[in-house]
Amino acid sequence: MKKARGPRKVRRRATKAGLPPGTAVYTGDAPAMPVRITAFDYDQDRLETLTPDSAQACSRFLETRSPTWVSVEGLQDSRLIQQICDVFGLHALTHEDILNVAQRPKLEDFGEYLFIVLDALDQDPVNGDITVRQISLVVGKNFLLSFQETQSELFKGVVDAIHSGKGRVRKEGVDYLAYRIMDVIVDHYFLVADRLSQRIEALEEVVLSNPARETLEEIYHLKRAMLATRRSVWPLREVLGSLERGDSLLVTPATRVFFRDIYDHTVSVVEMVESNRDLLSGIHDLYLSSLNNKLNEVMKVLTVIATIFMPITFIASVYGMNFKWMPGLEHPWGFPIAVALMACVGVGMWLYFRTKSWV
Amino acid sequence: MKKARGPRKVRRRATKAGLPPGTAVYTGDAPAMPVRITAFDYDQDRLETLTPDSAQACSRFLETRSPTWVSVEGLQDSRLIQQICDVFGLHALTHEDILNVAQRPKLEDFGEYLFIVLDALDQDPVNGDITVRQISLVVGKNFLLSFQETQSELFKGVVDAIHSGKGRVRKEGVDYLAYRIMDVIVDHYFLVADRLSQRIEALEEVVLSNPARETLEEIYHLKRAMLATRRSVWPLREVLGSLERGDSLLVTPATRVFFRDIYDHTVSVVEMVESNRDLLSGIHDLYLSSLNNKLNEVMKVLTVIATIFMPITFIASVYGMNFKWMPGLEHPWGFPIAVALMACVGVGMWLYFRTKSWV
Amino acid sequence: MKKARGPRKVRRRATKAGLPPGTAVYTGDAPAMPVRITAFDYDQDRLETLTPDSAQACSRFLETRSPTWVSVEGLQDSRLIQQICDVFGLHALTHEDILNVAQRPKLEDFGEYLFIVLDALDQDPVNGDITVRQISLVVGKNFLLSFQETQSELFKGVVDAIHSGKGRVRKEGVDYLAYRIMDVIVDHYFLVADRLSQRIEALEEVVLSNPARETLEEIYHLKRAMLATRRSVWPLREVLGSLERGDSLLVTPATRVFFRDIYDHTVSVVEMVESNRDLLSGIHDLYLSSLNNKLNEVMKVLTVIATIFMPITFIASVYGMNFKWMPGLEHPWGFPIAVALMACVGVGMWLYFRTKSWV
Amino acid sequence: MKKARGPRKVRRRATKAGLPPGTAVYTGDAPAMPVRITAFDYDQDRLETLTPDSAQACSRFLETRSPTWVSVEGLQDSRLIQQICDVFGLHALTHEDILNVAQRPKLEDFGEYLFIVLDALDQDPVNGDITVRQISLVVGKNFLLSFQETQSELFKGVVDAIHSGKGRVRKEGVDYLAYRIMDVIVDHYFLVADRLSQRIEALEEVVLSNPARETLEEIYHLKRAMLATRRSVWPLREVLGSLERGDSLLVTPATRVFFRDIYDHTVSVVEMVESNRDLLSGIHDLYLSSLNNKLNEVMKVLTVIATIFMPITFIASVYGMNFKWMPGLEHPWGFPIAVALMACVGVGMWLYFRTKSWV
Amino acid sequence: MKKARGPRKVRRRATKAGLPPGTAVYTGDAPAMPVRITAFDYDQDRLETLTPDSAQACSRFLETRSPTWVSVEGLQDSRLIQQICDVFGLHALTHEDILNVAQRPKLEDFGEYLFIVLDALDQDPVNGDITVRQISLVVGKNFLLSFQETQSELFKGVVDAIHSGKGRVRKEGVDYLAYRIMDVIVDHYFLVADRLSQRIEALEEVVLSNPARETLEEIYHLKRAMLATRRSVWPLREVLGSLERGDSLLVTPATRVFFRDIYDHTVSVVEMVESNRDLLSGIHDLYLSSLNNKLNEVMKVLTVIATIFMPITFIASVYGMNFKWMPGLEHPWGFPIAVALMACVGVGMWLYFRTKSWV
Repeated sequence: MKKARGPRKVRRRATKAGLPPGTAVYTGDAPAMPVRITAFDYDQDRLETLTPDSAQACSRFLETRSPTWVSVEGLQDSRLIQQICDVFGLHALTHEDILNVAQRPKLEDFGEYLFIVLDALDQDPVNGDITVRQISLVVGKNFLLSFQETQSELFKGVVDAIHSGKGRVRKEGVDYLAYRIMDVIVDHYFLVADRLSQRIEALEEVVLSNPARETLEEIYHLKRAMLATRRSVWPLREVLGSLERGDSLLVTPATRVFFRDIYDHTVSVVEMVESNRDLLSGIHDLYLSSLNNKLNEVMKVLTVIATIFMPITFIASVYGMNFKWMPGLEHPWGFPIAVALMACVGVGMWLYFRTKSWV
Repeated sequence: MKKARGPRKVRRRATKAGLPPGTAVYTGDAPAMPVRITAFDYDQDRLETLTPDSAQACSRFLETRSPTWVSVEGLQDSRLIQQICDVFGLHALTHEDILNVAQRPKLEDFGEYLFIVLDALDQDPVNGDITVRQISLVVGKNFLLSFQETQSELFKGVVDAIHSGKGRVRKEGVDYLAYRIMDVIVDHYFLVADRLSQRIEALEEVVLSNPARETLEEIYHLKRAMLATRRSVWPLREVLGSLERGDSLLVTPATRVFFRDIYDHTVSVVEMVESNRDLLSGIHDLYLSSLNNKLNEVMKVLTVIATIFMPITFIASVYGMNFKWMPGLEHPWGFPIAVALMACVGVGMWLYFRTKSWV
Repeated sequence: MKKARGPRKVRRRATKAGLPPGTAVYTGDAPAMPVRITAFDYDQDRLETLTPDSAQACSRFLETRSPTWVSVEGLQDSRLIQQICDVFGLHALTHEDILNVAQRPKLEDFGEYLFIVLDALDQDPVNGDITVRQISLVVGKNFLLSFQETQSELFKGVVDAIHSGKGRVRKEGVDYLAYRIMDVIVDHYFLVADRLSQRIEALEEVVLSNPARETLEEIYHLKRAMLATRRSVWPLREVLGSLERGDSLLVTPATRVFFRDIYDHTVSVVEMVESNRDLLSGIHDLYLSSLNNKLNEVMKVLTVIATIFMPITFIASVYGMNFKWMPGLEHPWGFPIAVALMACVGVGMWLYFRTKSWV
Repeated sequence: MKKARGPRKVRRRATKAGLPPGTAVYTGDAPAMPVRITAFDYDQDRLETLTPDSAQACSRFLETRSPTWVSVEGLQDSRLIQQICDVFGLHALTHEDILNVAQRPKLEDFGEYLFIVLDALDQDPVNGDITVRQISLVVGKNFLLSFQETQSELFKGVVDAIHSGKGRVRKEGVDYLAYRIMDVIVDHYFLVADRLSQRIEALEEVVLSNPARETLEEIYHLKRAMLATRRSVWPLREVLGSLERGDSLLVTPATRVFFRDIYDHTVSVVEMVESNRDLLSGIHDLYLSSLNNKLNEVMKVLTVIATIFMPITFIASVYGMNFKWMPGLEHPWGFPIAVALMACVGVGMWLYFRTKSWV
Repeated sequence: MKKARGPRKVRRRATKAGLPPGTAVYTGDAPAMPVRITAFDYDQDRLETLTPDSAQACSRFLETRSPTWVSVEGLQDSRLIQQICDVFGLHALTHEDILNVAQRPKLEDFGEYLFIVLDALDQDPVNGDITVRQISLVVGKNFLLSFQETQSELFKGVVDAIHSGKGRVRKEGVDYLAYRIMDVIVDHYFLVADRLSQRIEALEEVVLSNPARETLEEIYHLKRAMLATRRSVWPLREVLGSLERGDSLLVTPATRVFFRDIYDHTVSVVEMVESNRDLLSGIHDLYLSSLNNKLNEVMKVLTVIATIFMPITFIASVYGMNFKWMPGLEHPWGFPIAVALMACVGVGMWLYFRTKSWV
């Protein structure tokens, strides 16, 4: 589990530098908690649920021809993960990639199985921080393994559908199940992208009315959130594009139509993100222009004040000089005339600025 | 029906997250009104018009070999839409996409029929807000279904052409009819793009003469309108490109020439939008530069005033000091000489600024 | 004929929205004048020139196997254009595109003939406005039709070459004639791009020495002219690329070498335009930086003046206070010492600014 | 060894201009030190290590069918390098490229062997300067040559793995060995990219709280480091892409899976660099906006002060005039009323600015 | 020979507009001087050198099967060039392109021969102006023609290699000779790109320490030089890519390896240019930010001065009023207290600004 406010952390990967490749350690920062394994074996008529505490318990399902879904939540127990990988015959690199949760979303076809890495986005409703969690799917001939970093309720809808037996899910194979799981994840992208859109819209009002220093920070943080979303969505699109084209024999033509559907959704998310980027950069420009506008206003006030009071203060200063002889000093109308002169200059300046519409 | 001032809303899609896929609900925000169905069955010699109130009424036309157009306006009645989809044998995903009006324009070939999603743009003549309405077309062997979010007069021209029997439309198949409908939509893009061009041209004058805060808002709103147009046009171009290339057997070679024609029109719209984007970003730069120009002017005024009056006010202050002995205090020419000195300094400054052409 | 200062106008196209497609009306804004038709039928030994007043008069040439060039100048007479299209068997869409002069440059292969749309640029030598005129070429097996919006001297060089009988033109077919006509048009692009380069170079001097508000307008107008040129040249490049590759059987391999030559020229023009764009955007940055430089200078003047005169004016004010007892008031050296103090402060400030090289 | 703060130096290459191509001289700037050669010949059961002082000593290994790794550290001894190239039958251009260390990362297939050029990045932990060292690999049928510019501990992990005999390395061929070496290099890219990310994150805090001139320099230096990283990573990605696709017969299908793995890592690094670029350019914008914000604040202070004190100083000046008759001069309440007036004006201005929230 | 400070001149091309294509005139601006022709006919054992004054003199070499190199320096003598083209059977377009020196670098395969157009860059060591000279190569089966605009020492190294008979050049065919000539040209690109890098590095120091108006001009001129280099290098890369792929039968597989080598060099130059562009645009941003920084500093000085002296001058003004009764006027401590008050205010302001770290 990684906060996406900063660029995604890859420190663990880095600290492995020098170790022989193939060393499989969990590299995420999810809090330690017991691993939860749930296994489903079902067909149209039958559903068997199991919460095995060892990998061997799952192996029994491997022999059945009916679809089997083994959902693993939590990756801290390296030994257990190792066993599961061994039971299902996964390649060493797959094993490593499941645990090294700084993977880029990707699809690898190992012939016997498809290995799919995805990012599930989760957004803190209060401060909008985005958390990126890696989800690994292994789609075999009649089994599907899903690995999550922590226990979560993300796939609750899918589990319910399997339990209820309604809809297509019990009638189709594991490829359709993979579609259902990925559909849930893509739906969450919509949620995140949509909330970002709303925050951008709110920001727009603020920038036009009252740009402040905080606005700037908000813009920058939204930019980061956008970048993080983008980094997860773009490769996801490639993954789904490959599934839709049917590059693998493990995906039936009937299911490909469904992958095409979420492929289209992903394209929509990508476009939302890209257009949000454009809007955000437009808002930044707006912010800068607003600042400039404000500066202009401030400077106009200063200039108007200075230009009115400097000349009339000067007139007053002239008659403040201590020369013995100055015209009108002794005259009773001297003061009123001087004041009238100042008033004229002041009002004249004011009117001048009116014509330039500075005031 | 969605306002395009903000990024296109996808909230309904989002709220469906977790539901089994395939749940078909209308996700737009068009006001509830009765669905209007109009069916046309025609050939060169014959025209039959029907306003059926149930889907079954249409099924009779399916058996004829002549082209049939069923136009559905309004999507609120889920049950009715369901029936129509069933009668014409549409896939569950097609059914879902017709109702979920946040689709990206696309073309899907289901073998039996082509499913085309388009955006019709409509621009409020007063404030320039753009409304995006989804239009779904299903082009079968001898039937065409069109789905709109609300009752509209958009296709009036096509209906009239069918009634009058003039022109090609009654002589050709449903592919030509699809072309006619899409031509109407593309023509509206021209209208929208053209109006945006005109507003940009008007803006250009304003920015050069008198940039104001409202100008900035206007620039930003035009940018949003442009983005919305762009998001609808770019995928439309792909759709038409595919139709023109004749990827589907449902489009005859003779009709492909016509699709090539509106493909070219779409490319023109795309170029108009892109060049408008460039112009708009040029205008934003112009705005910023104009602001800077204005600031420079304001600062020059301030500097000229300050630079003229500060020194002469200083001279006056000097003779305002209360020292007993100051040269010339008692002299009758003291004051005139002091004033002359100030005048010299003031005029000298003024001339200096003239040479720098600040005034 | 359309001014290219603004984005190319497409209003006529737009007003056609709703009419059945295929309605062919002239959509340009060239002044009404009689259509001028000139027909040439020639081979190496023979040249027959005709200025027919009806389309039927041309049909005689169609039967000969020698190349025939029918040059039509002026598109207002819809009926006449219709007749010509009928005589030469042009598709309804070709007919429409000839008259609808807001086409994007393109090449359409109708099997029987190639339909080529081009933009001829013409630049007003005084204010640099660019006029875009559409030129349509129809290249058949042994005939070439050229359509221009108004009477012009553009193709004079080609006509002269035909008359004189020198060079290749009389020895080759209509594909070579098409090359000659397009070469003339591409040469005009060079002229336009070259003049834009010269204006940019002139602008550069101005921006560095004395940036003014007009400079900004000039930059913006050059940007628009560049955009217009770009919109005509880019698609032209595609057209020529297709001719060079020999996609059509109507172009002989020997002539393709010549099309490759003007294709290279078009690529050169594209590069000139692109590099002019870069230069222009560089000049805009230069302008902004120059403005900022000027502002800095102005502010330095203001700051220097204020910083010198404020302290010394303050000193004078202190001795302008009316306290009975102030040190030195009565002393004969009081005034000189005060003035000396002020001079010291003033000169000190001045020297301080010298060290910061502000003055 | 080249500092990457500036663009990579290519002066040596340049000074060779005019010499016949094929002149092989070391062009780097690593300090002169004796060349260290280490040779390993191994299979699953056997390991022979040799530190030969001449090239001929290695030739013995060539005849064995077991994998041989000759690691050359230091390139100053041209004669020795020449001998090695001759013994292993390398092309003159390969020989030249090994010594000319300004090569761009690339993969060349000479049939008999693959020639791979890589950049190893090393970052100074204190000032963050990046040093780029060229590493050349020659992958033959049963030998691998590695050339480094200086003696280094970079491949220590691989050497240890060979010595220990654990893991796959002793069981596989030279292609797997090449993978292990390249994996070490790619891991270093992660380290560098990760440190850059951390510095960018630190910078972000500084820019928002207290932007200074040094911040600007830091931003610029990070930009340069990013550019240098980018120039090394992008071509590396192509190299690995080619290895992964299996364009060469020297790479076995089993090993290709591993190359796919580091290819994915390289793509991750590329994305980190690209997103860091985006963040950095966002920080630059932030910096500029912060500066503008500060300027606005400063100007507001100035304007508030001037606008409060100019009017009240003016009032004081008026009563500083020396007219005989001025209203209230003699009155005991004259002074208090004048002061009260000034206070009113001053406070009034202050309140006015409060409403505009300038203070 | 054209100065590349401005966009490359194409005026001559433009003035040819309207003339029949195929009119071959020299369009460069090199000073008129006699054409120098040097011919070499050689094989491994034999070298024959000739400085013929007519084209016919060369024709003798055509009959030999040994490689022949005819180097033409100077293009003013149209008649002579015409003869050479005739003797070697060049196409009219090749002839025209040799003389029209505003060509874009390109490779044309005429079957009998390859026609290669290149740009040789030459940089004035003092002011950094770049001169672009076109070099045309015609590579036949056993002859190579090279055309330069003026007499030059550019190919001296190649000539020396032929004379000395060392190295490969006498043992290989004309394709290797073409490689040697192009290698010289690419080496000069390195020199130019390297000098630009150095000037950019020098600029960076200046911008950070003391940005001036001249810096801005320098940045802009470097940008232009970069653009000119770019326009010559990018198409050169395509030319070499085509030679490396071996699209033509006139290039032997053995020589293709060498073309791959300079292709790689060209890619390096392209990357240097692109990264210099990035650096330069970074420096421009740096310049603008530095300016803004300076402005902020200036404004702070002004604000500090104004904010300190305005209030205390006001206090002085208050006691400069001429009211009969003001508190403390008569008191001996009046003046010291007033001065102390002013000092307090002044110092207080100063301390306030210290806390905001403005001073």
